[in-house]
Amino acid sequence: MLYNLLKVFKTDKEHKIYRKKIENILGFKPVNYAYYEMAFLHSSASSSQKKNINGHNERLEFLGDSVLDLIVADIVYQQFPDKKEGELTRTRAIIVNRSQLNQIAETLGLDKLIIGNFVRNVLPEDVKGNALEALVGAIYLDKGFQFCQNYIQKNILNKHLNFQELLTENRDYKSELFMWAQRNKKSIRFETVGDKGSATKKRYIINILINGKVSGTGEGVSKKKAEHMASKNACHKLNINRQI
Amino acid sequence: MLYNLLKVFKTDKEHKIYRKKIENILGFKPVNYAYYEMAFLHSSASSSQKKNINGHNERLEFLGDSVLDLIVADIVYQQFPDKKEGELTRTRAIIVNRSQLNQIAETLGLDKLIIGNFVRNVLPEDVKGNALEALVGAIYLDKGFQFCQNYIQKNILNKHLNFQELLTENRDYKSELFMWAQRNKKSIRFETVGDKGSATKKRYIINILINGKVSGTGEGVSKKKAEHMASKNACHKLNINRQI
Repeated sequence: MLYNLLKVFKTDKEHKIYRKKIENILGFKPVNYAYYEMAFLHSSASSSQKKNINGHNERLEFLGDSVLDLIVADIVYQQFPDKKEGELTRTRAIIVNRSQLNQIAETLGLDKLIIGNFVRNVLPEDVKGNALEALVGAIYLDKGFQFCQNYIQKNILNKHLNFQELLTENRDYKSELFMWAQRNKKSIRFETVGDKGSATKKRYIINILINGKVSGTGEGVSKKKAEHMASKNACHKLNINRQI
Repeated sequence: MLYNLLKVFKTDKEHKIYRKKIENILGFKPVNYAYYEMAFLHSSASSSQKKNINGHNERLEFLGDSVLDLIVADIVYQQFPDKKEGELTRTRAIIVNRSQLNQIAETLGLDKLIIGNFVRNVLPEDVKGNALEALVGAIYLDKGFQFCQNYIQKNILNKHLNFQELLTENRDYKSELFMWAQRNKKSIRFETVGDKGSATKKRYIINILINGKVSGTGEGVSKKKAEHMASKNACHKLNINRQI
């Protein structure tokens, strides 16, 4: 059930310009433009005055989500031959997280293609990432898995993601430190040494003690964040590499 | 990191017989047998006396799970053009549920290929379904997505699943009835009319009243199950078709 977006545009010329914009962003000529037009059609469009609009991108988003999951599963499977199943799942989740997708969608300029009715014309962040997922679904339907996989890997993931940085940023230093401590029979203890700021803008300062010795200090808006920072410092100081 | 299963077999002949069994179940000759051998290697094998075994099927299971998710996402997307995103997700979950996979794995005879160390040599049910997922991962790596998709669809899903029956069995009659009632401005109420059996083997009997009139009765080991049965009866009686 493909929807012909012509109804949204007042003239054929307007419609052609829109299709040209899609081509420019994609860098290839679609076989069936309708898939892509559907990918950028937010559900709010059909619930607005444009009653003649039928369908929206949520079904394509469902499909694209699965395509993207497999593409990234394949990457992490190949790139991390020593990671176990649970770690592969976690690594994939870090790569395809919501804010990441929203960010990529904006960098690609997808937000300029999305058709919908938004309060004060401001697109909610997730609408962008969802459109990216729907676009992946559109490419899959239009050009098949093989093309889609190559395209997404080359033009989206490799270009817009720094895998190494992503994985470093998302390291769970506290857990890593505890695993290291257990393996090396060390004791770990956190100690709140103080806080600063007003009641509403409090920041905590926490020390991490390994075998009773201060091995790192962290500061953060919550105790959890301060402990994370303290753990990160300790990991770097003690040269503890990724354990999980 | 592919593992050569030769270590498991005492002789080359034994190994050849094992590969022949794989071929017979698959119905095609693999390019790289090592993927398939890994798919049937349960983690318990390497933790047993066979210390020389390296690796197991869990990583392949991670990959195969994503492949299967996409194959089934594609099917439900194409087969149910009117279903919304949430319904597609639910429908897929019904199709690829755990006990379903375990059952298919057994029907295919995968349980006879699995290598591992199990208490009293009895394979836990999930080990079978996991091996099926790992097998899907192996086919994907060995022959690519296109082949894998065709193969799984034709030889596994179409042959071993009755989609229509599955979806009927898994209907959420109670929710459907409430949606129907809301749409048609009817009131719904459940009434426990009794129970039977001993304290440990109790069975509940529940009536469903629509606008005060008994419209169905259900019996079950829990109130929830009895309500489900009562709702099912009412749906059939009132000819209420699938709402979700």
